[in-house]
Amino acid sequence: MMNANRPVTLFTGQWVDLPLESLAQKVQTWGYDGLELACDGDHFDVDRALSDKEYLLAKRALLDKYQLQCHAINISLVGQCVADKLIDARHKRVIPARVWGDGDPEGVRQRAAQEVMNAARAAAEFGIDRVIGFTGSPIWHMLYSFPPNDWQEIEAGYREVVDRWNPILDVFDEVGVRFCLEVHPTEIAYDIYTTQKTLECFNHRPAFGINFDPSHLIHQFVDPTIFIEMFADRIYHVHIKESIRRLDGRSSILGSHLNFGDPRRGWDFITAGYGGVNWSEIFRVLNRVGYDGPLSVEWEDNGMEREYGAREALALARRFNFPAGTRSFDSAFGK
Amino acid sequence: MMNANRPVTLFTGQWVDLPLESLAQKVQTWGYDGLELACDGDHFDVDRALSDKEYLLAKRALLDKYQLQCHAINISLVGQCVADKLIDARHKRVIPARVWGDGDPEGVRQRAAQEVMNAARAAAEFGIDRVIGFTGSPIWHMLYSFPPNDWQEIEAGYREVVDRWNPILDVFDEVGVRFCLEVHPTEIAYDIYTTQKTLECFNHRPAFGINFDPSHLIHQFVDPTIFIEMFADRIYHVHIKESIRRLDGRSSILGSHLNFGDPRRGWDFITAGYGGVNWSEIFRVLNRVGYDGPLSVEWEDNGMEREYGAREALALARRFNFPAGTRSFDSAFGK
Amino acid sequence: MMNANRPVTLFTGQWVDLPLESLAQKVQTWGYDGLELACDGDHFDVDRALSDKEYLLAKRALLDKYQLQCHAINISLVGQCVADKLIDARHKRVIPARVWGDGDPEGVRQRAAQEVMNAARAAAEFGIDRVIGFTGSPIWHMLYSFPPNDWQEIEAGYREVVDRWNPILDVFDEVGVRFCLEVHPTEIAYDIYTTQKTLECFNHRPAFGINFDPSHLIHQFVDPTIFIEMFADRIYHVHIKESIRRLDGRSSILGSHLNFGDPRRGWDFITAGYGGVNWSEIFRVLNRVGYDGPLSVEWEDNGMEREYGAREALALARRFNFPAGTRSFDSAFGK
Amino acid sequence: MMNANRPVTLFTGQWVDLPLESLAQKVQTWGYDGLELACDGDHFDVDRALSDKEYLLAKRALLDKYQLQCHAINISLVGQCVADKLIDARHKRVIPARVWGDGDPEGVRQRAAQEVMNAARAAAEFGIDRVIGFTGSPIWHMLYSFPPNDWQEIEAGYREVVDRWNPILDVFDEVGVRFCLEVHPTEIAYDIYTTQKTLECFNHRPAFGINFDPSHLIHQFVDPTIFIEMFADRIYHVHIKESIRRLDGRSSILGSHLNFGDPRRGWDFITAGYGGVNWSEIFRVLNRVGYDGPLSVEWEDNGMEREYGAREALALARRFNFPAGTRSFDSAFGK
Amino acid sequence: MMNANRPVTLFTGQWVDLPLESLAQKVQTWGYDGLELACDGDHFDVDRALSDKEYLLAKRALLDKYQLQCHAINISLVGQCVADKLIDARHKRVIPARVWGDGDPEGVRQRAAQEVMNAARAAAEFGIDRVIGFTGSPIWHMLYSFPPNDWQEIEAGYREVVDRWNPILDVFDEVGVRFCLEVHPTEIAYDIYTTQKTLECFNHRPAFGINFDPSHLIHQFVDPTIFIEMFADRIYHVHIKESIRRLDGRSSILGSHLNFGDPRRGWDFITAGYGGVNWSEIFRVLNRVGYDGPLSVEWEDNGMEREYGAREALALARRFNFPAGTRSFDSAFGK
Amino acid sequence: MMNANRPVTLFTGQWVDLPLESLAQKVQTWGYDGLELACDGDHFDVDRALSDKEYLLAKRALLDKYQLQCHAINISLVGQCVADKLIDARHKRVIPARVWGDGDPEGVRQRAAQEVMNAARAAAEFGIDRVIGFTGSPIWHMLYSFPPNDWQEIEAGYREVVDRWNPILDVFDEVGVRFCLEVHPTEIAYDIYTTQKTLECFNHRPAFGINFDPSHLIHQFVDPTIFIEMFADRIYHVHIKESIRRLDGRSSILGSHLNFGDPRRGWDFITAGYGGVNWSEIFRVLNRVGYDGPLSVEWEDNGMEREYGAREALALARRFNFPAGTRSFDSAFGK
Repeated sequence: MMNANRPVTLFTGQWVDLPLESLAQKVQTWGYDGLELACDGDHFDVDRALSDKEYLLAKRALLDKYQLQCHAINISLVGQCVADKLIDARHKRVIPARVWGDGDPEGVRQRAAQEVMNAARAAAEFGIDRVIGFTGSPIWHMLYSFPPNDWQEIEAGYREVVDRWNPILDVFDEVGVRFCLEVHPTEIAYDIYTTQKTLECFNHRPAFGINFDPSHLIHQFVDPTIFIEMFADRIYHVHIKESIRRLDGRSSILGSHLNFGDPRRGWDFITAGYGGVNWSEIFRVLNRVGYDGPLSVEWEDNGMEREYGAREALALARRFNFPAGTRSFDSAFGK
Repeated sequence: MMNANRPVTLFTGQWVDLPLESLAQKVQTWGYDGLELACDGDHFDVDRALSDKEYLLAKRALLDKYQLQCHAINISLVGQCVADKLIDARHKRVIPARVWGDGDPEGVRQRAAQEVMNAARAAAEFGIDRVIGFTGSPIWHMLYSFPPNDWQEIEAGYREVVDRWNPILDVFDEVGVRFCLEVHPTEIAYDIYTTQKTLECFNHRPAFGINFDPSHLIHQFVDPTIFIEMFADRIYHVHIKESIRRLDGRSSILGSHLNFGDPRRGWDFITAGYGGVNWSEIFRVLNRVGYDGPLSVEWEDNGMEREYGAREALALARRFNFPAGTRSFDSAFGK
Repeated sequence: MMNANRPVTLFTGQWVDLPLESLAQKVQTWGYDGLELACDGDHFDVDRALSDKEYLLAKRALLDKYQLQCHAINISLVGQCVADKLIDARHKRVIPARVWGDGDPEGVRQRAAQEVMNAARAAAEFGIDRVIGFTGSPIWHMLYSFPPNDWQEIEAGYREVVDRWNPILDVFDEVGVRFCLEVHPTEIAYDIYTTQKTLECFNHRPAFGINFDPSHLIHQFVDPTIFIEMFADRIYHVHIKESIRRLDGRSSILGSHLNFGDPRRGWDFITAGYGGVNWSEIFRVLNRVGYDGPLSVEWEDNGMEREYGAREALALARRFNFPAGTRSFDSAFGK
Repeated sequence: MMNANRPVTLFTGQWVDLPLESLAQKVQTWGYDGLELACDGDHFDVDRALSDKEYLLAKRALLDKYQLQCHAINISLVGQCVADKLIDARHKRVIPARVWGDGDPEGVRQRAAQEVMNAARAAAEFGIDRVIGFTGSPIWHMLYSFPPNDWQEIEAGYREVVDRWNPILDVFDEVGVRFCLEVHPTEIAYDIYTTQKTLECFNHRPAFGINFDPSHLIHQFVDPTIFIEMFADRIYHVHIKESIRRLDGRSSILGSHLNFGDPRRGWDFITAGYGGVNWSEIFRVLNRVGYDGPLSVEWEDNGMEREYGAREALALARRFNFPAGTRSFDSAFGK
Repeated sequence: MMNANRPVTLFTGQWVDLPLESLAQKVQTWGYDGLELACDGDHFDVDRALSDKEYLLAKRALLDKYQLQCHAINISLVGQCVADKLIDARHKRVIPARVWGDGDPEGVRQRAAQEVMNAARAAAEFGIDRVIGFTGSPIWHMLYSFPPNDWQEIEAGYREVVDRWNPILDVFDEVGVRFCLEVHPTEIAYDIYTTQKTLECFNHRPAFGINFDPSHLIHQFVDPTIFIEMFADRIYHVHIKESIRRLDGRSSILGSHLNFGDPRRGWDFITAGYGGVNWSEIFRVLNRVGYDGPLSVEWEDNGMEREYGAREALALARRFNFPAGTRSFDSAFGK
Repeated sequence: MMNANRPVTLFTGQWVDLPLESLAQKVQTWGYDGLELACDGDHFDVDRALSDKEYLLAKRALLDKYQLQCHAINISLVGQCVADKLIDARHKRVIPARVWGDGDPEGVRQRAAQEVMNAARAAAEFGIDRVIGFTGSPIWHMLYSFPPNDWQEIEAGYREVVDRWNPILDVFDEVGVRFCLEVHPTEIAYDIYTTQKTLECFNHRPAFGINFDPSHLIHQFVDPTIFIEMFADRIYHVHIKESIRRLDGRSSILGSHLNFGDPRRGWDFITAGYGGVNWSEIFRVLNRVGYDGPLSVEWEDNGMEREYGAREALALARRFNFPAGTRSFDSAFGK
């Protein structure tokens, strides 16, 4: 035996400029086991999935043709709109026109909520049980308490997220699908303490889980292995991606309002294996807590050619995907 | 000779619950040389300074009574309102009622701008040439580029700050006073690259300078000595304060929406001398660039009694306030 | 106000070669507030304290003469015998002859248990409510699992300690005194996880508390501030002492069977303030959890003259014994 | 030419639950050059080797069938009993019943000594010249000097080991075999200074050498390359294994009486290549001192599946087994 | 697509004991794309290249036979003589006899200058446009300012180098070839600030560029990526080589007058990939600045067999030679 | 008792612009115990000391007037000339004209040798037994082996130093004075391995000892405590001075041919106590090896005012000059 059983998939969000079939062809050649489909481009259309009987059959046929599995769809960009306070052109650029509508913030939030419910229904229809997404946050802009926060507003922010998402999660429960929040700055949960508080606010309802992605923790100096241990029973999906800190006294960990890829930034996203993250330790903890879901590669690295990066990350995922020990090393003594 | 000539003052912003005279009494006992007066409480009232002939004479008499100098007044909280995008209850709590008015954001911005102009006039009247303050920022909420920023908006943010502040700085120039931005998260400039860009946007006009405060750089991993070297000619005022990083894998450098003083935060403010900052290096660079203005202690440390902290920081400022060498150590060989 | 209220005492265990009066004289001169009396030499005799009415009166009179307080007595060496598996010449050298008796291990354990009970009674008689001590351990020799431990024996070891100590603690409860285990290698609890387990095994009975001494944690790489936070409600007494790591690739953290003071050891005890421990952080946590008991200096530093060390450690304890903040630094804004 | 000549073997101690032939089959497939046979299970039976003419011939035939070499046998568990002070159930579980006998400690020690002598004879008979083993220690329980050690007892402990082992080593000399102590906690030598002292106590007799295993040095902060340089002429065998330190302020380097594999331990064993050890430096020193014996992989990693680990360690041993340079890089200039 | 286009060559300077054809044969087998020819041995003879029509044709034919490219020749050892202050037996050993002549220092300098001019001419004739070399330095011996330097002499040293090299560079310009200084201790430029100053002294004339080799920066604690960014437009050639620091409190970073390969040295040269250099970061910067020239492996590692090292370095160069990203990871959102 | 007995002196070499009496006056006020006199200015004139009977009497009277001791004179600058290969204007600037003479290198070396002999005679006459100095080095310029060193020349360099200095040391022996080399770059011994070799070359003759100065070791990454332990019996004098490393990726540990005080240098000299050196550890080792000679402060810090620096260094020397422990901390147990 060689490797643990977890399949390695590629998240298609950074590849929606390619028709799904072109991408599937490449991905099979590289050796991936499957795809995490973005609800974007021609990759996965929630609307058509629900309205057109043939759509999902054709989608499945395409995947089968290239022997690719699918364990999750990803609705991050729409999810972001559900609970954001500020809704503006940044959102408009990344969501479907029908969700944006006239752009009135509250209207966008309502339509986004409907779309996420539909994503759960479409996923169920497609025979999968995970939807990856963001939640948005009404309080992200109060990150740094100046002018001094009224701490009651922070509390209210958590409650608002719960109020907006609980009806959505009810639909998830109805159709037997789970929501996996990618813990991430700009979301209601972005580190250990905010995740802890968010889960409590939702009374730990099982429908609300986590897409673990260490790249968002590293630049915050949060230890990914502690994160996994603390939230083990809510980790339903895993992203294979890193970030790197480049702190030389000149750069800032906050990013300096510089775009990703700018060498003056204090941190940046980087292909898994290139930033110094201890993947051996991460996989040991995943083994220990019994995680057996997909390992989904997300390519976000402005300093490496996209296809090269996708292959490097796959190689890393294969190498560290070792099986947990099933016996103690000193158990054979004296046998 | 023992110490460099720079006076050590106390910034009164965290003491406005005390009448100025009570504070002055204490401060003299402790051994301070003077005060940096907050435009708050009964410490310094911009309105009365301009409308009531006697006001400034009485203020000066009080300072003289306790042999205290004054080199700067501080209008930070009002300055914040000049260019913030979101104006809400957080601002209302910290500015004078007449500036808040009905709270309509643009109205607040306009009145705040007038108030800062008046602060410059009052400072001139009082015989001093520095006003410390914040600028606010229309783009702070776009710190983390998700949903993805439109980078043109970032550019527009810088321009808006310039447009709002240039008329104010014209008043500063008229009355011969300089504005000292405390480089700080939530402001238009909060690290090296944003400071560099801000100064460029203002075409390096001399009226716009910096209040150097290392406590806002440390938690960003920015080296304070490089900051001083790069902006030496615009550092008009110095705050003596530190921050400390407490990164143990659980805490986040972003702060987790936890209040200052909460031990789960990844960083916190702390009395100068208690956080590991290399003040020897900072003072060497201040010496090298010829800074000879005030060293103003700001107490922000929720884990130490306020008066104890004020005395410890003073002791530190005295100890490190050593004179620059005036000769090379090997210049005497062979004489 | 300048300092927090905690008294600074000197533990007399390393000074029992001096008559108590000689020591008291010196200690008063140096500026200490009191003594933690060792049950050894003429410092504190448990037997006489219970049998001779005059003994405790005379002891108190002596302390009063030099204006010294007493908050605790220390029975460490006898306590060690209560639950050790191996009882041998090492024990004989450091306990009273009447406790050693014929040296039969189980007899020594029984007599040691009686002596500790008597120490509690004597403390109560003397008007104090803390006895500092060790517990011994039946499983210390199994520290390194080779030959492979039977992990049931480890469990049994914890239970044996509880069984031997519960009757002793009953006496403590009767007389209103608390036992303070110095968490320390060779004892049943020597780090965070063994302390956690020990407290659980005792069902967290209040009579069983901790003498916090960071010198035993540092060389194990345990963070003393986390220790305080986790066991805050059981920390009844504090020792001011450090240890230092000297790891140069040749030395071992285990100590190489070399005596203290040998420069080839990988770690050693050292006067507080000379080993790099962050006392500022330790005192902040003590402030946060509300510890207001004694700070007791223990001199163990074979590289510094004894009296010099006692004075240096006192100076450190005074310096860091600052009061906690009573107000938030931004609470005065806008007053 | 590609690799240095050293063969890579697998130590079979953690595989004695498998019949030797099953293991041999696997090991050949993986690409190993040979086996270091444990004196345990059906792998190598010292008693039968000496009493049954056919036994060794059959053993050799089996190895030849799978083209596997054998350079050493390993008698660690029995060796441990020769000089341990405490002999108890831990020992009983891991040694042959005939050595345990009635379990009387001194009887066990005597029979263990005989068994080790026989192991030397059997090795010679089998045509090999190395026996790997432990020595046990009469003073391991005095690791931490409390109750304070009588340092004469430490000295006596070293002498006792010499007295018990010298007659054994005489047999080794007679049959031309060498003993290789695996320097390891719980043995008389466990770091640099105890190894130095042990070798001196044996007057550096050549029969007493070392099985170098860096996994026991790393968690003590001992630099393996210094170890090799200091004892180069006594390193007769090498184990390929690592340990990893996981010190997060909560865990202790002493291990907290927690079993291997427990994530709360401060250190643990781990497959070579997964713990951060600098194997390039170790191999350079092995090259420099001319070590040309076997590299024997020992699998002890409770977090990785056993067979996966055996293959990863083999790959590492091959990669770093590079030949020493035979010429200086600047020797060709000007030729 | 898989790799960036940069060819990987081997510098032949450490292989001149082999006839070029033997080396070419090996190098092709290993998978190199070409050779950087040393002006030494039978590898490249400047004199014959200019005097013998057939010489270069035969050289090219030999390279073609083994499908090897050539992008540069290397005249380092002769270049060193052009501006060194001390010319002695060290130089004699490594340069052609005709350049050494009678060994009178100024004569050697003049003849060396002529030879470098001829190297440029020969390169042009051979159809290539890079000559790698050293400059020598009249001030290297004043590295440590004791006896105290007259800093005017340092200035004069830079000027002397310019005066000696400008006429040589004129020839380079005539024939369309560029000189690539390997920034290196003992040369006029050996770190960032001396390179900056040297380039300024030459008025940044394009004929004078850099052969970037990180192995000379690492032991000086200079960050190679900053070096590349600062001098991006003058980096015409790249060496793949590392150095390693081995600082254990005993060794000195200056080298202790010990030869390379001596384990007591504080640093040493080492095969790329074995010393901890972050090649991922180096290649990202090379990508960013658009470097598309050769990657030339230089073997200098006295602890690894020469041919083994050449193959390991090639493997590293191939692995990290990834293409730069051509698109932003978030540019596909919403397409 | 408070402090160890070692006197604290000030080396006058950086103060020769002041008449000795002015300096003595200041130094007494600051609290020094004495002076280490430079053979320069009017501080100590070797020539007059030997030729003019009254000179030494007057010198002694002056010291007595200010109650200052003298334990050593310092002839560093002349000593440098005895064995340097390059003798040039740098030397001329720092030595007496009569030693320079016509500047012919060999003549300078001879006259310098005579002067050092005379310094020994003058010291004896003055009643002291230490002369501090440099040796110079014929091989310093070969620090970096390129062009490749002929390692026989390195050997020859050591021998030349011995040949030049042995006759000088004979005079030292005659008059009962010892030479104390300040181990320092540009001298024959500048780190641990070169010191070891130098002492061996001199056959460890007692007349040749060391002036220990950690400031020259720190920037080489040499651990000063190891240095003391290795050469304990040859350390005759100690300098209290530090250096600091400022390595930011741009600066080089070699110094970039930049003068002291230039912030771009990778290291610089700095007042004791301001650079992070662990003086507690240094004094513990000095105590352990029984060093009881002077502690001589040398001021070399271009970033701190000279008199301020002299006082800070004195305060540090007093604080750390603690007595060694005379008893083990556990020796009192059971008394």
